[in-house]
Amino acid sequence: MKKSSVGAALRRRLGERFVDGEVVRRALALDASRIPPAAVPLGVVRPRDARDVAAAVRICADHGTAIFPRGGASGLTGGSLVSRPGVVMDFAPLNRILRLSPEDRTVSVQAGVLTGRLHEALERLGFLYPPDPASAAFCTVGGNLSENAGGLRALKYGTTRDYLLAATVVTADGEILRLGSDAHKSVAGYDLLRLLVGSEGTLAIFVDATLRFLPAPKAVATLSAVFADEQAALEAALGLLKEGLLPRALEFVDGVCAGAVGAASGPFLIVEFDGHPAEVRAAAAEARSTLKKRDAVRVSLARAPARREALWEARRRVSTALLKISPTKAAEDVCVPLSQLPALYRALRRIGRACGVETCAYGHVGDGNLHVNLLPRPRRRTDGAVARLMKAALELRGTITGEHGVGVSKKRYLPLETGAAVLSLMRRVKRLFDPRGVLNPGKIF
Amino acid sequence: MKKSSVGAALRRRLGERFVDGEVVRRALALDASRIPPAAVPLGVVRPRDARDVAAAVRICADHGTAIFPRGGASGLTGGSLVSRPGVVMDFAPLNRILRLSPEDRTVSVQAGVLTGRLHEALERLGFLYPPDPASAAFCTVGGNLSENAGGLRALKYGTTRDYLLAATVVTADGEILRLGSDAHKSVAGYDLLRLLVGSEGTLAIFVDATLRFLPAPKAVATLSAVFADEQAALEAALGLLKEGLLPRALEFVDGVCAGAVGAASGPFLIVEFDGHPAEVRAAAAEARSTLKKRDAVRVSLARAPARREALWEARRRVSTALLKISPTKAAEDVCVPLSQLPALYRALRRIGRACGVETCAYGHVGDGNLHVNLLPRPRRRTDGAVARLMKAALELRGTITGEHGVGVSKKRYLPLETGAAVLSLMRRVKRLFDPRGVLNPGKIF
Repeated sequence: MKKSSVGAALRRRLGERFVDGEVVRRALALDASRIPPAAVPLGVVRPRDARDVAAAVRICADHGTAIFPRGGASGLTGGSLVSRPGVVMDFAPLNRILRLSPEDRTVSVQAGVLTGRLHEALERLGFLYPPDPASAAFCTVGGNLSENAGGLRALKYGTTRDYLLAATVVTADGEILRLGSDAHKSVAGYDLLRLLVGSEGTLAIFVDATLRFLPAPKAVATLSAVFADEQAALEAALGLLKEGLLPRALEFVDGVCAGAVGAASGPFLIVEFDGHPAEVRAAAAEARSTLKKRDAVRVSLARAPARREALWEARRRVSTALLKISPTKAAEDVCVPLSQLPALYRALRRIGRACGVETCAYGHVGDGNLHVNLLPRPRRRTDGAVARLMKAALELRGTITGEHGVGVSKKRYLPLETGAAVLSLMRRVKRLFDPRGVLNPGKIF
Repeated sequence: MKKSSVGAALRRRLGERFVDGEVVRRALALDASRIPPAAVPLGVVRPRDARDVAAAVRICADHGTAIFPRGGASGLTGGSLVSRPGVVMDFAPLNRILRLSPEDRTVSVQAGVLTGRLHEALERLGFLYPPDPASAAFCTVGGNLSENAGGLRALKYGTTRDYLLAATVVTADGEILRLGSDAHKSVAGYDLLRLLVGSEGTLAIFVDATLRFLPAPKAVATLSAVFADEQAALEAALGLLKEGLLPRALEFVDGVCAGAVGAASGPFLIVEFDGHPAEVRAAAAEARSTLKKRDAVRVSLARAPARREALWEARRRVSTALLKISPTKAAEDVCVPLSQLPALYRALRRIGRACGVETCAYGHVGDGNLHVNLLPRPRRRTDGAVARLMKAALELRGTITGEHGVGVSKKRYLPLETGAAVLSLMRRVKRLFDPRGVLNPGKIF
């Protein structure tokens, strides 16, 4: 078949659910990574159901045309970027909550449902869906599955992977498969479902998913603690964990980031507990005492939602504040074993000095996960600093990405982490699932 | 190469770490499934390290000889059974805890470490490794990973999969790979690690693993509640979950099983909470009141370890008591969405009557997981009842196996659950990882 006819074939099959106006095409070439797209897509598919997804994939595959699945496009590594000419599969129309069963503690949603909407629907009924990426207001469940999104509550509750029971997916040859089971546990054959989680849309496309959820905690308490320097803050964070505390969030903001949001007099931690009121009260009191013993300059504790939100406010503004200061900053996402956090932060400072770039970091230190930002003077200099940061994280037995994925921006570093043999096995898995290379090409590898 | 020389080649490379005395060979052909092995193995490899495992796999692969990895051989579906002539890889010698880091909240163990020993090592330091299969005293971490073992605490804490961070594995061509990361989170490339979890030794062999663990709960409370009939007991179990309670264990024992252990006057539930003392106290009180409201005939509550253990005692003895009554019983492991449990139990009774076999069930109803036993009169009649049970579980949107795996005994039912297309994809994954079919052949497919 001729490449020129892919648009016509999609139009024939999908009617107005295939669009190719230039404004739309240009808009959907981009994502939150701000990496320049390599191409403007030929058109955009807006599927109504799994059959539309399958039909579009089949048509694209027959024409050798790339398909770029797109949820909220909130990824920071270019996972939904149009990296060569092809068709965008926009999941915005697939935004229905299909079945919410309090009895089964499961909810079935289409892939385009916003994560924040899922949170709200469950909170209204007294339930909690734990995965909580910072972009919850505009990212989608399908995107979260494709990236294995983490977020603020991963320390206690794990990541998106841990809440997935079953899913409908479309394969690279346009087959609709149901994977997993609606039961809470199943070990019937290979766990293909969890192989697909975090595969960034390169092995198959999530169309809908059945997720489990939990009863909502009855109480939440939040602490904010300011420190004289970063090492003291990081040691205090580790101190909390050593005491056997298990906060649902344990966040760190360094002095540079704190300065950028103009909210605190130095680096700070946010610590949040949830659970039974008595448990939360006891844990918060213990944490306050530990933080003070470990040289916190000031500790604030809040229980009421509005006061808790006030403590979070500075932490939430970090990312956008840094973007304003430096629109071309490199936003990295390294993660190391907990004990290596202070060493990672020291390495970051060293790298900044050596490469002449300003460095700062914040993030989910309870997981060992630092969102490192490198603020360039001449753009090219951050590349060297990023490479050194990746090597430092790996030398500390860590990973190049805790939750953002490989996408486009971390491709060159992936072999440093996996080694050639594991990378080769991953490539063979890719070829098995997508021999023609039509699913989100140019990502991961 | 000639098949006859595989023993000689293994002996040359491994010396006394390859044994082929007849007593050993006959003993290691069997596992806890009590399925008759199809063959006596040619010999047994007792590896000292990953290089031994890799060398033995390479030699076997070169000779086209099957390898049967063996942990505690406690699986109930024949996962470690010798299903054709080949070599057993006995992980008993690889029994060291390599590195236990309270700071990182991670522990690295060789695959042959007993799960119970890992529990003890962590409990001594005030930590909890949640996966708790009933066979913890004699099963191994490597076996747990290969089967994705669940157990009593899966309701609150999940299964073995959820605690794995990284592993060393040996592939079918004898390559040693390190998968995953020592960091608590990583999304660097495909999650090959979790594809291997639950793959029953058919894709690669676990040699060692890095697992995460949690702070131990400060209090535990256990309730036992006896009911007049099974439907009341199951409805009460669901009632607890509907109230928003999250016990760590929620176990059901039906009247037949209760009679077999001679311990209770009817079907009963065991409910166990852990966490902060105040939380546990409140949850136990609420559960007691709910159980009474939902027609429990008698509710007992215990906090002290010895008294808690006394409540568990009857539940723990069910499996062996049933074996004594009926050594040829079929032990099944279906799992359904929570709301479908009462219907599953009714179906079980119907099937028993229709097929003329005695049926009974117990298990992890908090997960929707029932261990169903079919006590045959003429042996052949359980086969029909098992097939009907599998169909009933699938019609209720469930799975043929919640935690025991497919192994040998559930192979014929797997296609009913997955369908032909998913099964074909699983087979292609098998061929990709093990093109010569030497890793634990005859299992799953």
